[in-house]
Amino acid sequence: MPFEPCGVITLTTDFGLRDPFVATMKGRILARYPRASIVDITHDVPAYWPGEAGFWLSRSWRYFPDGSVHVAVIDPGVGTRRDIIVAAHATHVFMAPDNGLLAPLLDEAATHRIYRLNPQLLQRFSLDAPSATFHGRDIFAPLAAELAAGRCQPEDLGEPTSEYVPGWIEEPHLIGQAVHGVIVTVDHFGNLITNVERSHLSRFTQPVVHAAGRRFALRRTYGDVRAGEYLALLNAFGVIELARAERSAAEGLGLGRGAPVSVTEGLRTSQ
Amino acid sequence: MPFEPCGVITLTTDFGLRDPFVATMKGRILARYPRASIVDITHDVPAYWPGEAGFWLSRSWRYFPDGSVHVAVIDPGVGTRRDIIVAAHATHVFMAPDNGLLAPLLDEAATHRIYRLNPQLLQRFSLDAPSATFHGRDIFAPLAAELAAGRCQPEDLGEPTSEYVPGWIEEPHLIGQAVHGVIVTVDHFGNLITNVERSHLSRFTQPVVHAAGRRFALRRTYGDVRAGEYLALLNAFGVIELARAERSAAEGLGLGRGAPVSVTEGLRTSQ
Amino acid sequence: MPFEPCGVITLTTDFGLRDPFVATMKGRILARYPRASIVDITHDVPAYWPGEAGFWLSRSWRYFPDGSVHVAVIDPGVGTRRDIIVAAHATHVFMAPDNGLLAPLLDEAATHRIYRLNPQLLQRFSLDAPSATFHGRDIFAPLAAELAAGRCQPEDLGEPTSEYVPGWIEEPHLIGQAVHGVIVTVDHFGNLITNVERSHLSRFTQPVVHAAGRRFALRRTYGDVRAGEYLALLNAFGVIELARAERSAAEGLGLGRGAPVSVTEGLRTSQ
Repeated sequence: MPFEPCGVITLTTDFGLRDPFVATMKGRILARYPRASIVDITHDVPAYWPGEAGFWLSRSWRYFPDGSVHVAVIDPGVGTRRDIIVAAHATHVFMAPDNGLLAPLLDEAATHRIYRLNPQLLQRFSLDAPSATFHGRDIFAPLAAELAAGRCQPEDLGEPTSEYVPGWIEEPHLIGQAVHGVIVTVDHFGNLITNVERSHLSRFTQPVVHAAGRRFALRRTYGDVRAGEYLALLNAFGVIELARAERSAAEGLGLGRGAPVSVTEGLRTSQ
Repeated sequence: MPFEPCGVITLTTDFGLRDPFVATMKGRILARYPRASIVDITHDVPAYWPGEAGFWLSRSWRYFPDGSVHVAVIDPGVGTRRDIIVAAHATHVFMAPDNGLLAPLLDEAATHRIYRLNPQLLQRFSLDAPSATFHGRDIFAPLAAELAAGRCQPEDLGEPTSEYVPGWIEEPHLIGQAVHGVIVTVDHFGNLITNVERSHLSRFTQPVVHAAGRRFALRRTYGDVRAGEYLALLNAFGVIELARAERSAAEGLGLGRGAPVSVTEGLRTSQ
Repeated sequence: MPFEPCGVITLTTDFGLRDPFVATMKGRILARYPRASIVDITHDVPAYWPGEAGFWLSRSWRYFPDGSVHVAVIDPGVGTRRDIIVAAHATHVFMAPDNGLLAPLLDEAATHRIYRLNPQLLQRFSLDAPSATFHGRDIFAPLAAELAAGRCQPEDLGEPTSEYVPGWIEEPHLIGQAVHGVIVTVDHFGNLITNVERSHLSRFTQPVVHAAGRRFALRRTYGDVRAGEYLALLNAFGVIELARAERSAAEGLGLGRGAPVSVTEGLRTSQ
């Protein structure tokens, strides 16, 4: 089934917005495809670490229209021999360095096609002299424009592959009756976002979340407790989140990226 | 008079830009209305506090084209029984939680129509299973797209109402011959933005602004004083602002949100 | 040769994104030219200092499509007698206060046409009552829309001129056999961006960069050294950059804006 672009291109980078890095990517996209509709997913993930970008991208892409092209550039290996991957999944296309960024998405995507960008094909798109340090602007952006404009298909860009660098964040695992996961990131509100998903909860009748030596009952929304009180909930991106109503849970609990969380059964209180 | 959309949708939230919250709102808008022209007003108002967002929105909307849809989501009550309001005023439409955010706008709008969103109508727009924690993405964004696409009118979304939760910032008041107001926010430059408007000044021949135990003469623009000197002016949004040329007045004066300011007559110096 | 607009308008300001300043500029652009494609270059250059904005704009504009309009508003003299300049260069148009901002671009542009905005012409565009403190919204944005919509040409806006306020950053200069430059800015990653360009390096067989009492060999890309090691490179914007692989060179070296750098010949080690 060919990729049918809708014209939307999303950008996910660690470039920040202070310098003209993201802007020049957009300039090059618009130069090749003036009708592109460009959406910034985030440019503020931790520098050099593809883990968080991959997590958010795997949780966010489904809210974009069918036919979107998603470009993600966290690329400490730019200009070295690292590969670039182009993946098609569920009417969307994804491009990123092959450094583990796309692994969270590809791991859970039952059906996908993956291609390893062939640098020799860049000439065909007049991209044969990229800088050594800014492939976001010189390779990713123009190729995303070509894909979004419908002038090429993912399979035109390289050889199919089934291999890719694995992800940076370990999957939650089961020890005894407890699911053990980790805090992936802290959001703007200080909510602690974990990698424990809805599917991990199916074994529990009344899940209780443990972190920082405390227990958190699972609630429906922030307003279910009073301002200042803690809660856990299955958030709008399908993962467990620890929050504090109208406050920062991260500050209150002193927790951040990488901190362990676990979930146990809360129904049997006798043990 | 029906709402005639121009395709512009503005977004005002406390979500920040670090996480994919705003991006997924945009994704859902574009999925329903690919031609939408989306403008970020701000995503950096103080978390959980609708006061500042309401102030800026009431001061900014008039600079957008006729037919704009303005979505504002500062929503600590998301998923609880708080209502959502849709208001039509002067060729524009506004959507926000009914938590006081829209009050500054509605209070001063002589003619407006207000509707209370009927959750049972969400089904009609295939929005009957929103998350409990992210109505910005799951309700506001898709409905804004429907309005901007011209596929529904504000009155299609709920019952008319004339009530709404009052605003968070008290109006300036008169004590003796002095107008007493407050600093609503500090801008990027450290300018202190008050709620004292042009209309409050009509009683004065030569207004003098008082704050932090100091007096400030009203000037026309920043360059009317030398770098480092303080001034007051009626700013480009129609309210009194305390500034310091090429410096931060907030830092220099040690003032911030909520600090009192007053205006008195400066002409008669004899008293 | 008349200016042929493509509809792209870029914005470069010191306004930040926390307040609705940039948003209201966009609103006014869209009100006059609904099809405008607006790209933010940066809104986070140091307040009141046109030097950094001018540097980045002169390095970035070429990545935007032919026919782009570039608006830059770092404008501490807003509302005073400072002029506004409109310049045409190489299929692009630029607008900025005449405060040195455009000098880096105009200095190196062999062919350009410069016009000094005639305030009396503003009436023709229904812009005869701008605020005294926000010309970005009240003059620059609407005129950019007129230019991008093809409804006026740069020469319609004022008298030709060949003079403009000089730039803020001195050009690198030669002392003996060494090129002496300066760090213009520190990017999001902590890389130190200098004003020493490719052309300054032509005299050297094996350039060595000096800063903070240390020597840096010129590399091709960040991954050419191990994480934590320092390097210099000719970056993707054509200037010398001091970097530290996967770390902040600025923090590591304790250097920032204005710090001196020099380049010497590294081949002859005997002297």
